[in-house]
Amino acid sequence: MYTAGDLRRRRAAVRAALPGRQPHAVPGEARAFASANIALVKYWGKRDEALHLPRTGSLSVSLGPWGSEATLALTRKAAEVWLDGEKLAPGSSFAARALAYLELFRPESGENFVLKTRNTLPTAAGFASSASGFAAIAKALDALFGWDLPERNLSVLARLGSGSAARSLRDGFVEWKCGRKADGSDSYAVALPVAWKTLRIGAVVVERARKPLSSGEAMRRCIATSPFMAAWDKTVRGDLRAAKEAVAKRDLRALGEVAEGNALAMHAVMLAARESVFYPTGASLAALAKVRQLRAEGVPVYATMDAGPNVKLLFEAKSESPVRRAFPDAVVLCPFADKGSRR
Amino acid sequence: MYTAGDLRRRRAAVRAALPGRQPHAVPGEARAFASANIALVKYWGKRDEALHLPRTGSLSVSLGPWGSEATLALTRKAAEVWLDGEKLAPGSSFAARALAYLELFRPESGENFVLKTRNTLPTAAGFASSASGFAAIAKALDALFGWDLPERNLSVLARLGSGSAARSLRDGFVEWKCGRKADGSDSYAVALPVAWKTLRIGAVVVERARKPLSSGEAMRRCIATSPFMAAWDKTVRGDLRAAKEAVAKRDLRALGEVAEGNALAMHAVMLAARESVFYPTGASLAALAKVRQLRAEGVPVYATMDAGPNVKLLFEAKSESPVRRAFPDAVVLCPFADKGSRR
Repeated sequence: MYTAGDLRRRRAAVRAALPGRQPHAVPGEARAFASANIALVKYWGKRDEALHLPRTGSLSVSLGPWGSEATLALTRKAAEVWLDGEKLAPGSSFAARALAYLELFRPESGENFVLKTRNTLPTAAGFASSASGFAAIAKALDALFGWDLPERNLSVLARLGSGSAARSLRDGFVEWKCGRKADGSDSYAVALPVAWKTLRIGAVVVERARKPLSSGEAMRRCIATSPFMAAWDKTVRGDLRAAKEAVAKRDLRALGEVAEGNALAMHAVMLAARESVFYPTGASLAALAKVRQLRAEGVPVYATMDAGPNVKLLFEAKSESPVRRAFPDAVVLCPFADKGSRR
Repeated sequence: MYTAGDLRRRRAAVRAALPGRQPHAVPGEARAFASANIALVKYWGKRDEALHLPRTGSLSVSLGPWGSEATLALTRKAAEVWLDGEKLAPGSSFAARALAYLELFRPESGENFVLKTRNTLPTAAGFASSASGFAAIAKALDALFGWDLPERNLSVLARLGSGSAARSLRDGFVEWKCGRKADGSDSYAVALPVAWKTLRIGAVVVERARKPLSSGEAMRRCIATSPFMAAWDKTVRGDLRAAKEAVAKRDLRALGEVAEGNALAMHAVMLAARESVFYPTGASLAALAKVRQLRAEGVPVYATMDAGPNVKLLFEAKSESPVRRAFPDAVVLCPFADKGSRR
């Protein structure tokens, strides 16, 4: 997974994020929750593979109660990883990734971790769970070892598990700062002070099969071969400024146009890679056409897509009826709905 | 269609391409044929709208006997435009475009043109006929008025009808030079001295309906809004060099990879425009996936797509059986098949 040199740099990044603290043998268990997030200005392309450092900043909105819960405890026996109530084989993809991450945090006394994760994401909604999963693990580590870390340090630790997990430490709109430092200590996420209770996210699932190429692989291919990568980085910087302005004004049209344009530009970067990578399917294109049709009929709704074929919709409460009519199978989420009670 | 200033510049470009010559009243009629062409390195984006001057060079292969025939005569009565045996209403799209073009060549004595065009393109193959159509008209004008123009002047005249018509004056591989001059006199096409008898073009029609947005409109939107337009121009210049090298070596793999990458990059430029333009449909994506699958099975076949959903295949005679099995409805063309007898 990582070279020896990469591992040294990852360990150094962890130490730097744990000032005056370290893992140690503790009894009991700790539990933490982190929201999933959907990027409105995308993270696409790493400047450092080992430290998951991005080439640009990005902006997401958290999905409130939809996310992942992680429970951590130490054991003298073999490590265990559980997902949604089932114990995973150590070689399974998620278990291997989680254990490689937890290895960075094993106490010197040699205990192993028992990790139990559970996703509260509606499984039908097709959201990625690695961001919320690794953010929840980072929070559970903090609680288990009693570190009481500042949020930005937690964001750095989550990032070392999965890049976009950096954005899953906070509710609401979150900006992941690109940072400039080689050790990544300035590449963390911060919340934007905006609540937008009428905002809705619709999840349109067009395909449940696993994607044929991981997003990490696709990013690497784009960096190596896409002629539009440099222009993409520049586009993201402009989109990030525009999206933050739109969020501050709660301007759905401005935010939607940037988010949709940014997502499609990301897919364009992939389409232009050699050999081409293209996640949207015919059903994705049909959903995008329906979104344009709704707009032509005066319904302000916009689309975004991650590195996969599923389509996410961005709209406001007042448009919920026509959106639900056009997309009867969509799962509609309210990112800020129970904000008051959750804070 | 054009402003008064545009028209003056178009007339000046015509005069410059007709040294010592001009239209004049002549009896009889003249007939000419021009092949359609398919671009392997695309023309996408004009640097001059009125003169149809491209931002970059491009490279195409002509389709031999598949193209358009134009018959021209002068009349003292009203102008007429016929297409495939039917007289068109003067306001119809092709008639209006053809008449606006022919207006540049009306004799001072005031005669009108009777234009009869006929396409020998297999209508099921979904090829654009405007390139071959305007190239045939330019050749018919040359024959009617007895100008005996050099080929590059004819290429310039054809270009003033439809940009890619500049490439339809010659058989085989043709490079349309970008040129640098403001009047476009150095933006014409030249043939590459390569015959490649085993080359095959397969036409996979996935959609017969007219496209919702013309390629001219789509080009304009890309220039105005696509963040990848500048990178596209640079990509084309590299692709053009690589494609010419591949053609000189008759290296299908090298040519196919460049052609496919170039076509998908063009569609990526459109996908990233704001608002996005995307011609491929689910059926186009399925055809592209089948092409990749064939390659994975060891069949060297590559795809290209113009500003529409139909897919064209590039392969050699030895792969014709597996390609026909995978695409039973494809129309297979042999660009160089009857080269010897046609020259």
